Amino acid sequence: MVSDRVQRLLEGDRRALTRVLTWVENGGSEGREALRVLFPKSGRAHVIGVTGPTGSGKSTLVGALVRVLRERGKTVGIVAVDPTSPFSHGAILGDRIRMQDLTTDPGVFIRSMATRGALGGLAATTADVVTVFDAAGMDVVIVETVGAGQDEVEIADTAHTTVVVNIPGAGDDMQAIKAGILEIADILVVNKADLPQAESVFKQLHIFTDLQRQAGWDVPIIKTVAHKDEGAAELADAIEKHREFITDSGRLEEMSRQRAQRQLLAVAQAALLEGALSKAGDLVDELVEQITRREIDPRTAADKLIAAAKS
Amino acid sequence: MVSDRVQRLLEGDRRALTRVLTWVENGGSEGREALRVLFPKSGRAHVIGVTGPTGSGKSTLVGALVRVLRERGKTVGIVAVDPTSPFSHGAILGDRIRMQDLTTDPGVFIRSMATRGALGGLAATTADVVTVFDAAGMDVVIVETVGAGQDEVEIADTAHTTVVVNIPGAGDDMQAIKAGILEIADILVVNKADLPQAESVFKQLHIFTDLQRQAGWDVPIIKTVAHKDEGAAELADAIEKHREFITDSGRLEEMSRQRAQRQLLAVAQAALLEGALSKAGDLVDELVEQITRREIDPRTAADKLIAAAKS
Repeated sequence: MVSDRVQRLLEGDRRALTRVLTWVENGGSEGREALRVLFPKSGRAHVIGVTGPTGSGKSTLVGALVRVLRERGKTVGIVAVDPTSPFSHGAILGDRIRMQDLTTDPGVFIRSMATRGALGGLAATTADVVTVFDAAGMDVVIVETVGAGQDEVEIADTAHTTVVVNIPGAGDDMQAIKAGILEIADILVVNKADLPQAESVFKQLHIFTDLQRQAGWDVPIIKTVAHKDEGAAELADAIEKHREFITDSGRLEEMSRQRAQRQLLAVAQAALLEGALSKAGDLVDELVEQITRREIDPRTAADKLIAAAKS
Repeated sequence: MVSDRVQRLLEGDRRALTRVLTWVENGGSEGREALRVLFPKSGRAHVIGVTGPTGSGKSTLVGALVRVLRERGKTVGIVAVDPTSPFSHGAILGDRIRMQDLTTDPGVFIRSMATRGALGGLAATTADVVTVFDAAGMDVVIVETVGAGQDEVEIADTAHTTVVVNIPGAGDDMQAIKAGILEIADILVVNKADLPQAESVFKQLHIFTDLQRQAGWDVPIIKTVAHKDEGAAELADAIEKHREFITDSGRLEEMSRQRAQRQLLAVAQAALLEGALSKAGDLVDELVEQITRREIDPRTAADKLIAAAKS
């Protein structure tokens, strides 16, 4: 059953792809089995993270970028983690009409992810969905996130090239709040560049990139007007240039190794805890009660839990 | 040695307190031993989280609040997690002078925490520092954070009452970026309320609180001008009211239980992984290499790692 669907997915069957993605998102044994087979077939796609606040027009920008990539003959998978993205169900009608050429294109596959679920779980599931798209033969996988919170910074870790979308009018707050997000950018975009304050944001970002130079890579700042498709080709060029840079410099391989280690440790940690909890049984509730009553400290309680799970 | 210092800490010796805090922050065996003894003596302090972006004047507000609490006879511990806080070493001179009455007050103890270190580690260490202050007899412990990122949301989880500081002029961006932070607020503050745009922020926050009602608790919105000490008494009153609400409604006990569970699982998970890694030895590097080369998927690799650690 699983191997049959996986085989059809590898042959390009979109319905099989949809089914396998559902399995993977549900986290059950079918998903595990599918990933075991698909993981070795992945590793070819270029993964692009596109991050920016709600209202920055990043979904429209992703749409414009995908059109350029399609013209260049690339197949594209889109993973939308933002619940307010027009790629998700909550889209307003205008956005959905604008995206219609993408949703009917056989070279484009869009998957919208719910942001609910356990902390860290979303990052892990997003990485698995990217693996499935990658194994299914997508040349490019775009992961779209709002870029707020640690969970989303971890999702950005999945990407080879991270694009951070800024807009005019964010004012002084930009520095205070988005600094952590700006730091993960390989490419910066000033969208809505036809607005009057765009030049000021552009200059601020220039000051930022001068301070935050990456070795061997100057973070480009690209002006776009996404709803007119302006700047999308330049963005695609910058992404391609970054892909060449990380490939030639050996950074891609280094990133793959770091990601492998993170994934291994995250999965091992979750599995170890799950195993210990299932063996410890009622002791967990008892220890929680004892900590609540301050009879025992959490560290000593954890030692007892681990000892009980081992015996 | 450890029990001697812990004893002196419990008798009110500030130098012993400083030493124990350093032990706890370093995460070594002395810190563990101190926490084992101190944890059962904690659980009395009211823990207040104060969160807001750099530039919101939250440190000045904390200063004003502490003065009110001192007038009301409370002893106060301050944990500053924000590296740009004037409570930290990087303070500009003006701020330090303004804070001088606090730093020389024997009823106030200030600890500044570095934000570097492992992810999640900061939240765990902050919780431990709060435990030490609590056991040392502080009536109130204030944890000051910037409120960006998942790590800081977890730190806010340590608090019984969370105060989120807003300022005029943040504009439309407020909704997009800070929504996740506003949601954790038990009390909202509009600081710099003498600025012209303050009324507009106040109204926006009112709309927000109308949408996000907590059962049994109406989130108050308090206007302050922290550098003139205006509104600090109202803030202290609101905090006291919230403390009564969570005590009477049983929410305090529920929070303690949830916190106990989170702490137990977090510590157990970290200890389990540490144990497995030390037993698995070179196999870890080998598995990372195999995942990097896509010969094995992370989940299967994690199963091998766990199996090896058990044998």
